[in-house]
Amino acid sequence: MQSTNIIAIANPALEAELAAAINNKTKPPGSLGRLEHLAAQIGLIQQTTQPALHEPAIIVFAGDHGVVAEGVSAFPQDVTWQMVENFLADGAAINVFARQNAIALHVVDTGVNHDFGPREKLLNMKIAGGTRNFAKEAAMTAEQCQAAMQNGAELVAGLSGNVLGFGEMGIGNTTAAAALMHKLTGIPVADCVGAGTGLTTEGIRHKQAVIEAAVSLHADANEAADVLATFGGFEIATMVGAMLAAAQRRMVLLIDGFIVSSALLVAARMQANILDYCVFSHQSDESGHARMLQALQVKPVLQLDLRLGEGTGAALVYPMLQAAVNFLNQMATFASAQVSGKSSD
Amino acid sequence: MQSTNIIAIANPALEAELAAAINNKTKPPGSLGRLEHLAAQIGLIQQTTQPALHEPAIIVFAGDHGVVAEGVSAFPQDVTWQMVENFLADGAAINVFARQNAIALHVVDTGVNHDFGPREKLLNMKIAGGTRNFAKEAAMTAEQCQAAMQNGAELVAGLSGNVLGFGEMGIGNTTAAAALMHKLTGIPVADCVGAGTGLTTEGIRHKQAVIEAAVSLHADANEAADVLATFGGFEIATMVGAMLAAAQRRMVLLIDGFIVSSALLVAARMQANILDYCVFSHQSDESGHARMLQALQVKPVLQLDLRLGEGTGAALVYPMLQAAVNFLNQMATFASAQVSGKSSD
Repeated sequence: MQSTNIIAIANPALEAELAAAINNKTKPPGSLGRLEHLAAQIGLIQQTTQPALHEPAIIVFAGDHGVVAEGVSAFPQDVTWQMVENFLADGAAINVFARQNAIALHVVDTGVNHDFGPREKLLNMKIAGGTRNFAKEAAMTAEQCQAAMQNGAELVAGLSGNVLGFGEMGIGNTTAAAALMHKLTGIPVADCVGAGTGLTTEGIRHKQAVIEAAVSLHADANEAADVLATFGGFEIATMVGAMLAAAQRRMVLLIDGFIVSSALLVAARMQANILDYCVFSHQSDESGHARMLQALQVKPVLQLDLRLGEGTGAALVYPMLQAAVNFLNQMATFASAQVSGKSSD
Repeated sequence: MQSTNIIAIANPALEAELAAAINNKTKPPGSLGRLEHLAAQIGLIQQTTQPALHEPAIIVFAGDHGVVAEGVSAFPQDVTWQMVENFLADGAAINVFARQNAIALHVVDTGVNHDFGPREKLLNMKIAGGTRNFAKEAAMTAEQCQAAMQNGAELVAGLSGNVLGFGEMGIGNTTAAAALMHKLTGIPVADCVGAGTGLTTEGIRHKQAVIEAAVSLHADANEAADVLATFGGFEIATMVGAMLAAAQRRMVLLIDGFIVSSALLVAARMQANILDYCVFSHQSDESGHARMLQALQVKPVLQLDLRLGEGTGAALVYPMLQAAVNFLNQMATFASAQVSGKSSD
């Protein structure tokens, strides 16, 4: 996929206008903390002092992973397709939270090991019935990886809103994400692996050993696209393409937890400016996520000890973005409300 | 005020039922983190496995402080009444956030140094035009303090919802709150004081000196009600009464930042079980708040570096409570969705 360049949001004149607008609101300067940063960021993304959020959407990218053959997950692979059915039946956590916050939810099969047949609510962008086992061979071919990224860009082309949250479902994908993290940040594998859906300490140690062996096997994969094809999943590759396309369209990207952040790591290696468009929803309880966010030099908005994926953190953070935009658009100024400023002013 | 006892929410049988209901949802056990704790807490408060939130309200308690004569605030005292006017005109941050989350907002004059005249949207429970200067004499008489607490109980009697958020407005009230915190926790004054609405380092040092001198002057005030009358504000005393009454009614109490938490400190000294009913919305950027929450042995839900008061943290956390209740009521179970459990099960 040839992607056009993502433009940095920096704009000193607009930044100054936004800062003035924020500081003129009837509150002590800086007293809305992170919400002030979010308001400024969204303003810069949308190139206005009066940003607005419309038609927010979350896409859940589902795919299976050949590496589950190595016994790296606490849940069986069938859970991937079963959870896709749960999404379609409105029964999962992401359904509940998206509905609560009036966020449109889309589910895409990027490579689930299951034949769903034609289904009205399921987007079919299946590359194959799961990746190959990266403990033995590359997870996908370069062509499959490119096709998945292209699918992601097409998904985004079909959206009309200006906020896009990223979610995923794929048994085994914390193993893929940990491998991506290690390869792209250099952080030791031991600090990248975690319990996933609920491994024991022994299980985590095994997962680490599987990744370390695979990293040795694929020592030649170092460039971002190669790393993605070698260790990634179809859901991760499709996400990478969608993220790049969404930032090119100047959408606000809501980054969820460990797996979504690993996709962003890949995207950021391809186009560093994508980070300007991202809101890091939350810090996952999956142990590698804190280190990954550090490596990205970003700070999450929420810390709720979530470790569910599906885009749940992205859905939960959305009211904070609304609050940021709303205070900027709706609060009175010191002048309009005739409130006195600081005594020393 | 003679308050009836607040009953602890502990109920082992119901706790087990709630844990089972939460763990049967289609997600790895514990993967919704803090939301699971909130769901269980709200279930125990409401004594049901199917809790529901209805008619949430936030009360903003406004009052003035005689101690501002000592030069302890960056903003002039007039800002208290000006901000009350701003609340009535729908222009403040709390108006924006309460409206966003469909929370009813009530504003009560507990002792603002201003004659508002009769105003349709302003509840009048004014004890006096501000407290006296606690650097020179007790802030209020025992009778005034009792009357303010009684007012708080009456306010709560007039509500029909089951969630109550607490907010405040009062120039000088971080000084009162820091004094309360020091007296009730024994934490050194230096660790209780902060910048408030925006003091300089020198200003913070002066505020500390004022409190330390006042603490020496009133060395005999040690029992909770005495401490409250000596150092508190009318808005704080009214809040204490409202908090006790709300917990007696088994409402969910949304605790905001530094000043609201200082009121809760007082209430918890009177009735320790009140803590069972509290959700600690956020950790304020006001420097003493983190220590105060530690002293209460509680963990805030949000950390957004807010330091505005008004109940803004309480309004912002409300969607997290909705998410907690919604996942418990709306998510499918492993059985209903036919999703497989852990491989080891």
